[in-house]
Amino acid sequence: MSEKPLKFVTLVGSLRKDSLNATVARALPQLAPANVEIAPLGSVGDFPLYNADVQEAQGFPEAVLQMASMIAEADGLIIVSPEYNYSVPGVLKNALDWLSRVSPQPLVGKPVMIESASPGVIGGARMQYHLRQILVFFDAKVMNKPEAMIGQAMGKISEGKLTDAATREFLGKQLQAFADFAAH
Amino acid sequence: MSEKPLKFVTLVGSLRKDSLNATVARALPQLAPANVEIAPLGSVGDFPLYNADVQEAQGFPEAVLQMASMIAEADGLIIVSPEYNYSVPGVLKNALDWLSRVSPQPLVGKPVMIESASPGVIGGARMQYHLRQILVFFDAKVMNKPEAMIGQAMGKISEGKLTDAATREFLGKQLQAFADFAAH
Amino acid sequence: MSEKPLKFVTLVGSLRKDSLNATVARALPQLAPANVEIAPLGSVGDFPLYNADVQEAQGFPEAVLQMASMIAEADGLIIVSPEYNYSVPGVLKNALDWLSRVSPQPLVGKPVMIESASPGVIGGARMQYHLRQILVFFDAKVMNKPEAMIGQAMGKISEGKLTDAATREFLGKQLQAFADFAAH
Amino acid sequence: MSEKPLKFVTLVGSLRKDSLNATVARALPQLAPANVEIAPLGSVGDFPLYNADVQEAQGFPEAVLQMASMIAEADGLIIVSPEYNYSVPGVLKNALDWLSRVSPQPLVGKPVMIESASPGVIGGARMQYHLRQILVFFDAKVMNKPEAMIGQAMGKISEGKLTDAATREFLGKQLQAFADFAAH
Repeated sequence: MSEKPLKFVTLVGSLRKDSLNATVARALPQLAPANVEIAPLGSVGDFPLYNADVQEAQGFPEAVLQMASMIAEADGLIIVSPEYNYSVPGVLKNALDWLSRVSPQPLVGKPVMIESASPGVIGGARMQYHLRQILVFFDAKVMNKPEAMIGQAMGKISEGKLTDAATREFLGKQLQAFADFAAH
Repeated sequence: MSEKPLKFVTLVGSLRKDSLNATVARALPQLAPANVEIAPLGSVGDFPLYNADVQEAQGFPEAVLQMASMIAEADGLIIVSPEYNYSVPGVLKNALDWLSRVSPQPLVGKPVMIESASPGVIGGARMQYHLRQILVFFDAKVMNKPEAMIGQAMGKISEGKLTDAATREFLGKQLQAFADFAAH
Repeated sequence: MSEKPLKFVTLVGSLRKDSLNATVARALPQLAPANVEIAPLGSVGDFPLYNADVQEAQGFPEAVLQMASMIAEADGLIIVSPEYNYSVPGVLKNALDWLSRVSPQPLVGKPVMIESASPGVIGGARMQYHLRQILVFFDAKVMNKPEAMIGQAMGKISEGKLTDAATREFLGKQLQAFADFAAH
Repeated sequence: MSEKPLKFVTLVGSLRKDSLNATVARALPQLAPANVEIAPLGSVGDFPLYNADVQEAQGFPEAVLQMASMIAEADGLIIVSPEYNYSVPGVLKNALDWLSRVSPQPLVGKPVMIESASPGVIGGARMQYHLRQILVFFDAKVMNKPEAMIGQAMGKISEGKLTDAATREFLGKQLQAFADFAAH
């Protein structure tokens, strides 16, 4: 195989243990093309609430610096997140608020892919477009298509695993598209 | 005076001690019409990161229930928040994520007014429209106009006080409009 | 019955003769509560492309003034529109751009309800939130909930009529909610 | 010079003869790097209102096909547009609605840069983020930064020319950034 191996990292926007989105993120390594390795980032739950005073007095929390470093070294970032109240979950936005202050900011020019799963039919669309606006600030390189909004996700997951065949196939294709996108 | 007295509460979206937005929020009581009382809510920094598992196992944190109760009893909510990375600060969204789960949800039908201050010229506009979309989910009754986006706020604040006369006058008028809006 | 009779007008955001959204709009009069009358506004296809020079030189087109007047006299405006390219159709936005210049601007304080139908699952959500931001400028009084995003609309329409029973029932409830909203 | 020459085309979102944004667009050729040529596209005023029935019965208007072809051949598209009513002008969106149906759709993978000018301080920000969401649908390759939102534009233009030195310098730098962006 002549294709360059790629390393992607996943960031999950929910702290629930049985989160639909964490389940989707866990399925990705098996769905990825052969030359793609996918590793989880730490939890956004390990970050304190963002406070610029704390940042100035104490510097960045170790968990923030470590995640920033892992993102900087990766070939691409996959954000898998629920929609909370028609937007990005506070816990995910809080993590991004911390990461935005790290210098060099690790998302500049970084290929990013977005996925969301939800019990309802809309599948997280409202979260995704808010997240895209946020990523303009970060100057990230966000893939347009295919977009993955996994609606009615309850019926696509069983015993903590993403079992729906059509969804698995779709996410595999999205990962292939992201590998092509990130390699150029 | 025949006008009904009104009680508004303020929620600040930043944890910084010398936050521009906290400074604006502190100025509001002096700028309000005579029949309006304005009290601060607790800090969004007193909420833990939202986690549905924690909510289920331990119930709502006391700080969440107290804020929900204060909002429920108020005649209107004033959200004063910076823009972080082209959207709502994670700390503010995290507070809203908690509040959205309290039953009865305290923002249903509640009059809401939005203010933002920023060092740049845009004054937080990107935050405000994301917040408005979030507040559709909450079924809040959000005032349209006048909108308060206080740009170049550094020059409008001195020694921790909002000193700019034009801004003070404008915010006074916005509070009058909000009193009219909330009374109907 | 002591309830005040209400008159709503419908504005359709597509020019297609067999438009899904025109079909939905045509169904509304039969689904409305007894005290509600619903009449169609003229077509957005009767407006020229907005040009401030033309407006200055020739005044407003007759079709614009007539629609503005009908909206001003109505108790509420129902906008039924497809999503084009993740936003509001140009033809609908063009009509709104004309209406925004009429003085007095007819949407100030006007109760507005939004509906959208689409062949896909998302049902026009992206259009609706852009439209809501636009309506902040108009200072319209937009109902939050229930939101009507009719996905997979092809299967809910037959021979030019909205036939799906669940959708008809839902839209009837939304109209009842809008009647309550507009009456207060 | 080893740099590849680039050809950009400009699309203006207003039909006003003395439009601030048309004025900005006209200034760009003089501000561009040496290896960049900038040509205007036809006017969005030459497109009829979008109607899928007309498209089916009569095919695409010649003006649409010609603009699509010019975009397809260009190395990048520069959209210069006012904000109308907190969003994209109807006339510009109408043009995009037509272009989106042409096959092959000419914006797929096309480098795009956005500029806006307005009399107010916000400079068109609300238009730009709606346009960015629309361009996700088009699968265009939109430059993140620098963003050009030219506020208080009245004072930066004199006798139909963009005269403000700081704005001219900024737009020159943005064009250089876009040349780098489009070349990769």
